[in-house]
Amino acid sequence: MNQLEEKLNYRFQNKKFLEIALTHSSYANETKRDMECNERQEFLGDAVLSIIVSDYLFKQYSHLPEGELTKIRASLVCEKSLCQFAREINLGKYLMLGKGEEITGGRERPSILADAFEAVIAAIYLDGGMEAARDYVLHFVANVIENHRSPSFKDYKTILQEIIQQNPEEKITYVLVDENGPDHNKEFMVEVHLNSNVIGTGRGRSKKGAEQMAAKEALELMGE
Amino acid sequence: MNQLEEKLNYRFQNKKFLEIALTHSSYANETKRDMECNERQEFLGDAVLSIIVSDYLFKQYSHLPEGELTKIRASLVCEKSLCQFAREINLGKYLMLGKGEEITGGRERPSILADAFEAVIAAIYLDGGMEAARDYVLHFVANVIENHRSPSFKDYKTILQEIIQQNPEEKITYVLVDENGPDHNKEFMVEVHLNSNVIGTGRGRSKKGAEQMAAKEALELMGE
Repeated sequence: MNQLEEKLNYRFQNKKFLEIALTHSSYANETKRDMECNERQEFLGDAVLSIIVSDYLFKQYSHLPEGELTKIRASLVCEKSLCQFAREINLGKYLMLGKGEEITGGRERPSILADAFEAVIAAIYLDGGMEAARDYVLHFVANVIENHRSPSFKDYKTILQEIIQQNPEEKITYVLVDENGPDHNKEFMVEVHLNSNVIGTGRGRSKKGAEQMAAKEALELMGE
Repeated sequence: MNQLEEKLNYRFQNKKFLEIALTHSSYANETKRDMECNERQEFLGDAVLSIIVSDYLFKQYSHLPEGELTKIRASLVCEKSLCQFAREINLGKYLMLGKGEEITGGRERPSILADAFEAVIAAIYLDGGMEAARDYVLHFVANVIENHRSPSFKDYKTILQEIIQQNPEEKITYVLVDENGPDHNKEFMVEVHLNSNVIGTGRGRSKKGAEQMAAKEALELMGE
């Protein structure tokens, strides 16, 4: 337990929360006594993870439209990412599993690792509060965003602007060229012009979204 | 705005957050200047709502299994509930909508009301922090739970125990009668006995879950 706490970089006041986070239902079901498994903490940890990631993305990426934020959030809180985080701290080693689960490779099963990782987030939240959980989660999330060089984590208009303004005589403008559909389901089409040449076109549910997509197309055209 | 703040029972330090929460994309798209609509705050508000409700359910219903908690959370954060909350404070009246949206009844559209309600939650969170948002959200949620007399909000085993112990000679026991499936996808079957008579049977992914379902069946049989 102490070894795992070192990996978590968090010391529990009440180690019961961590014990529960490590108890898979297959183990709890095998024991005679009324043992609590990690499913309830997983329920809570899912929501703790979501607010921490959402708050971070909302504040760090203040120019990204909602659709892009939703995409990034989904990529960070999916089973694949959570399982990867769990492997970084070798969480599988510390799990309490039932015999059958142990034999069939449960310690390496992505769904079990991802669920346990969420239960650990809840354990830290219950023991140390939101700020302790935030420190823990952002350590993983910030790493992923930094290593993930995809422009989906950046603001396309800003990137394009930064590239273009290396030549002071060049000028970028965004032109709304079309609006379609009823008001509650409108689509906008925007062109991005470099001086008077169209270098990208984008569509979106909002003008800002369409501009981002036009800048994205321009960046792709420029090989960025 | 002051009138709405009274209904929210919250006074903003920075009214910009509330203004954004009330700005539907159809209005922002119609204006010439680069106006921010409520979609990004809706993204954040969704996660703020989820952690507040999850934390509340986790702590208040400490004996309900994860599956029941998930069901209750879903019923509280769905469009129908959020739209009802929005109507309680007459939120539609304060929305800024585009002309077409106005004409086609956008002020009463459930999706617009639900989204704006989430954006208002984010506005309070951004302006006053998590505790301010919690006060605001729990006012609505606690009301729904109180008015909602469904046993899904209660712990069936506890209710059954309370009824049975009115006769001191009666005794409830839970008996595991079957286990099916591979370890990672097991199903348990439990009988609840009143003295030596079976009064309910339940199935579940955990023993505790199966016991809750058995107690539920017994309560139904008893007309509760």
